[in-house]
Amino acid sequence: MERHRDQDLEAIRKTLLRMGGVVERQIREAMQALIERDSVRADAVVRMDDEVDELQKEIDALCNRMLALQQPMATDLRFLVATMKIATDLERMGDSAVNVAQAVAILNLEPPLKPYVDLPRLAQITQEMVRDALDSFVRKDARAAVDVCRRDDDVDALYRQLFRELVSYMAEDAKYITRALHLLLIARNYERIADHATNIGEDVVFYVEGRDIRHMTADEKASETA
Amino acid sequence: MERHRDQDLEAIRKTLLRMGGVVERQIREAMQALIERDSVRADAVVRMDDEVDELQKEIDALCNRMLALQQPMATDLRFLVATMKIATDLERMGDSAVNVAQAVAILNLEPPLKPYVDLPRLAQITQEMVRDALDSFVRKDARAAVDVCRRDDDVDALYRQLFRELVSYMAEDAKYITRALHLLLIARNYERIADHATNIGEDVVFYVEGRDIRHMTADEKASETA
Repeated sequence: MERHRDQDLEAIRKTLLRMGGVVERQIREAMQALIERDSVRADAVVRMDDEVDELQKEIDALCNRMLALQQPMATDLRFLVATMKIATDLERMGDSAVNVAQAVAILNLEPPLKPYVDLPRLAQITQEMVRDALDSFVRKDARAAVDVCRRDDDVDALYRQLFRELVSYMAEDAKYITRALHLLLIARNYERIADHATNIGEDVVFYVEGRDIRHMTADEKASETA
Repeated sequence: MERHRDQDLEAIRKTLLRMGGVVERQIREAMQALIERDSVRADAVVRMDDEVDELQKEIDALCNRMLALQQPMATDLRFLVATMKIATDLERMGDSAVNVAQAVAILNLEPPLKPYVDLPRLAQITQEMVRDALDSFVRKDARAAVDVCRRDDDVDALYRQLFRELVSYMAEDAKYITRALHLLLIARNYERIADHATNIGEDVVFYVEGRDIRHMTADEKASETA
């Protein structure tokens, strides 16, 4: 029973990390497709989505099976609940990356509106948040998880700045409107990916410490973590 | 033990429906605030969000406690897993309603861009999806749940139509851009609320029938439901 338990937990952990790996690739490749104006790459991001969806179903099935058959307690139970939540967030990140990739494919049909500077920076911070959130899960590191949540404010500030800049492009000339809208959509999707990374950070704290830090301010989140 | 179990399940069910009631009110009131240009009403939608957040935490705590102490099996286990997922979707719907209300407050500072026709229709379909999704949960009605998922296509089509219309407003005169963008944001948020209602429909099928119908086409979802 004990050995079974460890094997099952390990299989779930591995599947979640595999899913995380695919989603991280989607997020990174979607931005590369924009920067390098590479629509083949954008298309590959869209096609990765089936794998992500399948992995989420697999994770849920494994977790539900373990809940039903092994009646896990304490940390194991929190691990399973957190894993299902993290898989939900990863799946939605994948959807956001697909939205980005589809917007990139449209943008690549026209000359670039402007050199992309802030958008790759937004994507970079977001990618680091996703990577660090998954790392904090692997290392059971609640402090690192809280740190991920804290960075969400930087992303929000950068998004608002991009929003204002893109609106001023739209106002300048009507022929920029469609492109600026697609860039806005891309920025919005990275901002949402960062929200999901924050959710994962919160789930990690719940898993490691059993505390629910959702809807707290950044300082409140940090204050109780050892 | 048996009586405890029934009482606990009933308490969870009631809390989830209370949460659903608040979120339904947020979604409805946000649109009324737009139509009646009532910023006090919009502000009330924003303030309801704390209650929604607290109810979600309460539901998760109740479900985790029951998972830990009562080792539920089969339907009860699926009920708990589905309930936590539904609460997550309701919480995000509430966030979307807040986004709408905040955009409404800004729109109300300027004269209306145009008579609102399609947007209230989009909101109406979305509201019905949310109500029917929660009803299908209460009545354990997988068929009604699948029907909710099917209606998501209508919402997507209506959203795309609104998108095109609002972009043409932006192109017509630069002074319309900000208002059209806020209306676009509102439409987008209703479209996302409909996505969450679809997720709830899928969770209800999992709860009632133990089947995972996510990422299936509408016809595939329906084909196996008795």
